[in-house]
Amino acid sequence: MEQSGHNSGVGSRRQQLLDSQGRIAIERRVSIRIRDAGAGWKMDPLADCALAFPEFASGEIWLVGAGPGDPRLLTLLAVHALGQADEIFYDALLDTRVLRLAKPNAILTPVGKRGGTVSPHQDDINDALIESARLGRRIVRLKGGDPFVFGRGAEEMRALVQAGRSVRIVPGLPSGLAGLALAGIPATVRTINHAVILATGHRVVDDETAAEWETLARTGQPIILFMAMARLAEIAAAFQRGGLADDTPAAIIENATTERERIIETTLGAVVSDAAAHSFSAPAIVVIGKIVTMRQDLRGLLLSWQSSAG
Amino acid sequence: MEQSGHNSGVGSRRQQLLDSQGRIAIERRVSIRIRDAGAGWKMDPLADCALAFPEFASGEIWLVGAGPGDPRLLTLLAVHALGQADEIFYDALLDTRVLRLAKPNAILTPVGKRGGTVSPHQDDINDALIESARLGRRIVRLKGGDPFVFGRGAEEMRALVQAGRSVRIVPGLPSGLAGLALAGIPATVRTINHAVILATGHRVVDDETAAEWETLARTGQPIILFMAMARLAEIAAAFQRGGLADDTPAAIIENATTERERIIETTLGAVVSDAAAHSFSAPAIVVIGKIVTMRQDLRGLLLSWQSSAG
Repeated sequence: MEQSGHNSGVGSRRQQLLDSQGRIAIERRVSIRIRDAGAGWKMDPLADCALAFPEFASGEIWLVGAGPGDPRLLTLLAVHALGQADEIFYDALLDTRVLRLAKPNAILTPVGKRGGTVSPHQDDINDALIESARLGRRIVRLKGGDPFVFGRGAEEMRALVQAGRSVRIVPGLPSGLAGLALAGIPATVRTINHAVILATGHRVVDDETAAEWETLARTGQPIILFMAMARLAEIAAAFQRGGLADDTPAAIIENATTERERIIETTLGAVVSDAAAHSFSAPAIVVIGKIVTMRQDLRGLLLSWQSSAG
Repeated sequence: MEQSGHNSGVGSRRQQLLDSQGRIAIERRVSIRIRDAGAGWKMDPLADCALAFPEFASGEIWLVGAGPGDPRLLTLLAVHALGQADEIFYDALLDTRVLRLAKPNAILTPVGKRGGTVSPHQDDINDALIESARLGRRIVRLKGGDPFVFGRGAEEMRALVQAGRSVRIVPGLPSGLAGLALAGIPATVRTINHAVILATGHRVVDDETAAEWETLARTGQPIILFMAMARLAEIAAAFQRGGLADDTPAAIIENATTERERIIETTLGAVVSDAAAHSFSAPAIVVIGKIVTMRQDLRGLLLSWQSSAG
């Protein structure tokens, strides 16, 4: 991307700082960026900073993660993709505010499971993507969160490249991690855990899968559950059989990063009854483990910015 | 954010489409966005789309994730923060291309462990952040990846709010997930795994931690290791004791999403010798599990965009 009409450059000078006790010298590099005096500073990240975005060629399919909901958590590359696409196939659970970044006259095609009366199969979605790409359209396949964390991005990507389509991938913020952090629960805390387990609750719980849940519980590590509301009772029971105590801290974050966000802090033993009592439902993240207690340390102290979304 | 000088609106009409076999009806919503004819369409996501960004007030500290390296994987909110900050404290491992988004004359302060001769302690970093914020500066604390996934974001956040500072958090793309996906290895594949384990290899491996590694291996789930190069031999041995077969697929991604990215596909039994033979070193992501085989299905077929970064 050219920077025509700009006289710009970057330099720096060094500065050493001591803290009040004189214990530490942090070396600061003070940027002295020189720009065309007439241009001033403008907040235009895609035009400034010489970031080159890949061309979105006719017939290409870009598999794009939309993050947890709030459009301000989109990546620059996702914004670039949305602004270029001729057609956007989007999941029904997706926060539709992100679709405002589509160009005028872009075709917006909902394909998610809750999109209304029609619930297309994965094969049909793949076929529709391939067919539209063959028409020479620039296609964005937009999924909530990160398509490669329980989003079936892998399967779509494989089907598309095997059909001979040119595919690019643009990862997004995983809802189960970003939504959690913004609720005041970090996925890792140095004094608490050195591993964290992400798991989908989407499967039927039978003998085999119940045994898998028990094995996860036996690690003693925090577990973040995606899409687990429907089978929460069976999963929680398997965790208890796996040795997790009833009083293990737990939380549910419903509609993370949206204005409708609700959070409940509870325990493994009470999570099912509390979810029912407060009518929590999908989409929601469930987290089991001591990391939940961090939220107590931060309660009311973190600045919230969710409610100021456009 | 105002849209003065624009005559704009959004409407839609509906379209039904059948595929070539007539099997499926996808209902398309065709956006008919009306804009001031004179304005045309401009790729300026922060000005268009009525996205409101929170004010970055004097004395606030924003804890921002920079993602895996490529600045095009920054979120809009991170770009907003970088463009507003008076001082940016950044980790040494951070891809410095993201610092180009700082405003002119922003103070750029490296504080990472490899930042040169000075290796500040965490307490000293906290003190420096608090001191700068007290001067009324708008502070960004910038960390690679997601500060809340093995980034000590939790600890800094707690120290800062306990010191009475106003703190906002801006999650980033976790390097171990985004870097992996861009290397053609999705963290989850529906036919392979229903859970994935993220773990840091940063700790000394003693009897207790070796037992923990074995427990993780016993789940049979893919394991993504952050910061594990220094202790890879001990960790791999613990995984083998935990029951993971020597021929379990493995991969290392060094310098993910940068121009210096290198990827090696190997097995658990050979990962240590292969890493040594090809001189792989930190920063790197190590992944153990069958999800690595997805890369074979995609080899050479995904479009690469890493090398076009500015």
